[in-house]
Amino acid sequence: MNERVQFPLSAQDIPRAWYNLAADLPDLAAPRHPATGRAITVDDLLPIVPAELARQELTLDREVEIPEPVRRIYARWRPSPLVRARGLERALDTPARIYYKYEGVSPTGSHKPNTAIAQAYYNKQAGITKLATETGAGQWGSSLALAGALFGLDVSVYMVRVSFDQKPYRQLLMQTYGARCVPSPSSETETGRSILARDPDSPGSLGIASSEAVEIAAQDPSTNYACGSVLNHVLLHQTVIGQEAIAQFALADDYPDVVIGCAGGGSNLGGLSFPFLGEQLRGGRSVRVIAAEPASCPSMTRGTLAYDFGDTAGFTPLLRMHTLGHGFIPPPLHAGGLRYHGMAPLVSEAVAQGLIEPVAVAQSACFAAGVRFARAEGIVPAPESCHAVETAIREALRSKEEGVGRTVLFGLSGHGHFDLSAYGEYFSGTLQDEEFDVGGMYAALAGLPDV
Amino acid sequence: MNERVQFPLSAQDIPRAWYNLAADLPDLAAPRHPATGRAITVDDLLPIVPAELARQELTLDREVEIPEPVRRIYARWRPSPLVRARGLERALDTPARIYYKYEGVSPTGSHKPNTAIAQAYYNKQAGITKLATETGAGQWGSSLALAGALFGLDVSVYMVRVSFDQKPYRQLLMQTYGARCVPSPSSETETGRSILARDPDSPGSLGIASSEAVEIAAQDPSTNYACGSVLNHVLLHQTVIGQEAIAQFALADDYPDVVIGCAGGGSNLGGLSFPFLGEQLRGGRSVRVIAAEPASCPSMTRGTLAYDFGDTAGFTPLLRMHTLGHGFIPPPLHAGGLRYHGMAPLVSEAVAQGLIEPVAVAQSACFAAGVRFARAEGIVPAPESCHAVETAIREALRSKEEGVGRTVLFGLSGHGHFDLSAYGEYFSGTLQDEEFDVGGMYAALAGLPDV
Repeated sequence: MNERVQFPLSAQDIPRAWYNLAADLPDLAAPRHPATGRAITVDDLLPIVPAELARQELTLDREVEIPEPVRRIYARWRPSPLVRARGLERALDTPARIYYKYEGVSPTGSHKPNTAIAQAYYNKQAGITKLATETGAGQWGSSLALAGALFGLDVSVYMVRVSFDQKPYRQLLMQTYGARCVPSPSSETETGRSILARDPDSPGSLGIASSEAVEIAAQDPSTNYACGSVLNHVLLHQTVIGQEAIAQFALADDYPDVVIGCAGGGSNLGGLSFPFLGEQLRGGRSVRVIAAEPASCPSMTRGTLAYDFGDTAGFTPLLRMHTLGHGFIPPPLHAGGLRYHGMAPLVSEAVAQGLIEPVAVAQSACFAAGVRFARAEGIVPAPESCHAVETAIREALRSKEEGVGRTVLFGLSGHGHFDLSAYGEYFSGTLQDEEFDVGGMYAALAGLPDV
Repeated sequence: MNERVQFPLSAQDIPRAWYNLAADLPDLAAPRHPATGRAITVDDLLPIVPAELARQELTLDREVEIPEPVRRIYARWRPSPLVRARGLERALDTPARIYYKYEGVSPTGSHKPNTAIAQAYYNKQAGITKLATETGAGQWGSSLALAGALFGLDVSVYMVRVSFDQKPYRQLLMQTYGARCVPSPSSETETGRSILARDPDSPGSLGIASSEAVEIAAQDPSTNYACGSVLNHVLLHQTVIGQEAIAQFALADDYPDVVIGCAGGGSNLGGLSFPFLGEQLRGGRSVRVIAAEPASCPSMTRGTLAYDFGDTAGFTPLLRMHTLGHGFIPPPLHAGGLRYHGMAPLVSEAVAQGLIEPVAVAQSACFAAGVRFARAEGIVPAPESCHAVETAIREALRSKEEGVGRTVLFGLSGHGHFDLSAYGEYFSGTLQDEEFDVGGMYAALAGLPDV
């Protein structure tokens, strides 16, 4: 065992290809066309994404080469640190060895640029000049804004209105990068107008914001849609995280027994865990993978595995995923991110096959874990990442109870510098654990498409 | 010339000693005792700092060994990146090669932890349990809060009131680390109470906040004072920045013609430039060093070189420095940080000897440069750092006019994720260039101590 704190790689060690779990995961259900019910093709996706991303969405190739211009931008902050959490280990007095892979070193402070840069690159190559997208907490929107600035693309971000109002700094970050940020539902789309007509005070949701962005992209040939999570090609791009972690564990002369990621749409979790699962599926070492989701928006632990739309209006292909129903609206006061009605098909299938174990974490427990981590390790985690921190602490304490020195890896997907008002609510006691809206889920599930 | 974008070092390459410019800079004036006027001794400093820091403040040794526990914490984010700013070079169409040394990867997003960690370590070793300090924009206070959490010390931060009101996120960051943040002037000290009696609406100043922290430390044997800039030992600890940069330039097979840093108290500028100046003073390559200060608080370009107090109440030793007078209160609406009446004695002496060239930059020009940099390089700079960005852009454009391909290095001392409201004011046009208060300076200079 190497007893160092960091296990640095050089820019040459940035992976040359993304890893595609679909190549190793048997029985992955294909996305279907909402009108015909048949498996979708590359051509079906061309109105909203460039051909190469459409191909990546459907490919079963194990590896997809990372273009050099994308690797060169990755090299500005990648390989990201793998850190041994010695301060946290001491604070917990645990025999567990805890490591975290820290994505907060990116310019926007999260893992999201890993795919934003790639998507902007392929769109630029395809002659596209404008991108439209949705964002919740704003990590994705600001990352696409960054990528748009670097590749000279105009970016419009439809931001869930409750987040737009709560997080002015995220809007300003997008504006600094030159992007346009619009609260959703907006009056710019049919979708937005019809929702506002029914509910002028709608807090919005990721599903609604996605519909707005997809609608704009489908109508304007110079505009494409960029997606921040859920889809196969998005998770694909994030696998640089787990591949780097595997190389770093070789330097550490260690290997995780448990891999933990927070999961909203699934891209952070998939990016970290899929390369480890790939090793396992090809006969290598086994790992226990845990997906930590919010108790108030628990698609994996409470939802249904079914074909559903990725957005509220029903513009996207049908995806087989764990879902609360595409009409489900998460509690508006939830501060912890990860508010999406569904889970990535790749993650959902891995959960169904027992390769990933989902857990639901309450909001107040997340912030308590985040504060504990900050004081022990120095980094204030994003509320999303706190779900993984809480789960890792629980695993480390179990390790202590059982007297077994396991190796625990978790993804620290971002820092919380934009989310300190949520920490403030936690400190002042105004932050409540939101009830999961079971009735809302059943109502939404009643609207599942008939496939 | 190596054409890569990053020049990564490993944790083993973190310097083993800090570099002390005082060893190579002739004729540095010693700090003096305010009561007697004689040169101060280690003993004079013991009421407020531990013996080892007092020794470092006065030593002429060229190297001071970095303790291993401090290096191990540095290793969580150091060596910090040296990045070739290819995006900015393209945007400016300049023959200059622009590099930046990026300190925003630290847990609090700036260079300040380099000395906070060291100071907390020495205080812990000396059996101290509490630290008191001042902070302006909050970068220093949050960094000392971080260090206090890591070493188990209670931290009280007196924060300039106008910043306390403007930057709630910085307070929350300190709170997350477990520190206590108090708006200054406060009713907790004689200094604060007497200022509030005269002016209940005092916006505060770094000088006032320093007096409060020093007063507390001087009265309570278990509390010491920790300083975020200006003093020799603080600049000493920051020299890891420049030493790493020299090693990274060797990898780049390049060397800077110009080294640029923003300067408020001088620790970021000194940390970056002193190792280069040391090379020059010992007969190595010459560099032009530029210190970029705010036009509204221009100690080097408009102030006087004289003995003055570091704080408003006159508790500190007398320091020979460029000063606007210890009673000078910078414009309260200034968003760009760097609001201190004086300049570090080491920087001041280097300016007096022509080794460092000061320039003053207006606030709006800083934000314009920050936005330009963000869109070209992806990182939103802290307003302080924008002073260096603006100066670097000016140098690169001069390089273009003259058709000379110079190598320009600047310090990107931190990211602006906590300062986006200031960017918002810039975008909305409400951010004004503050006039320098010349009358206020003359009034303050009239109160210089008689030495």
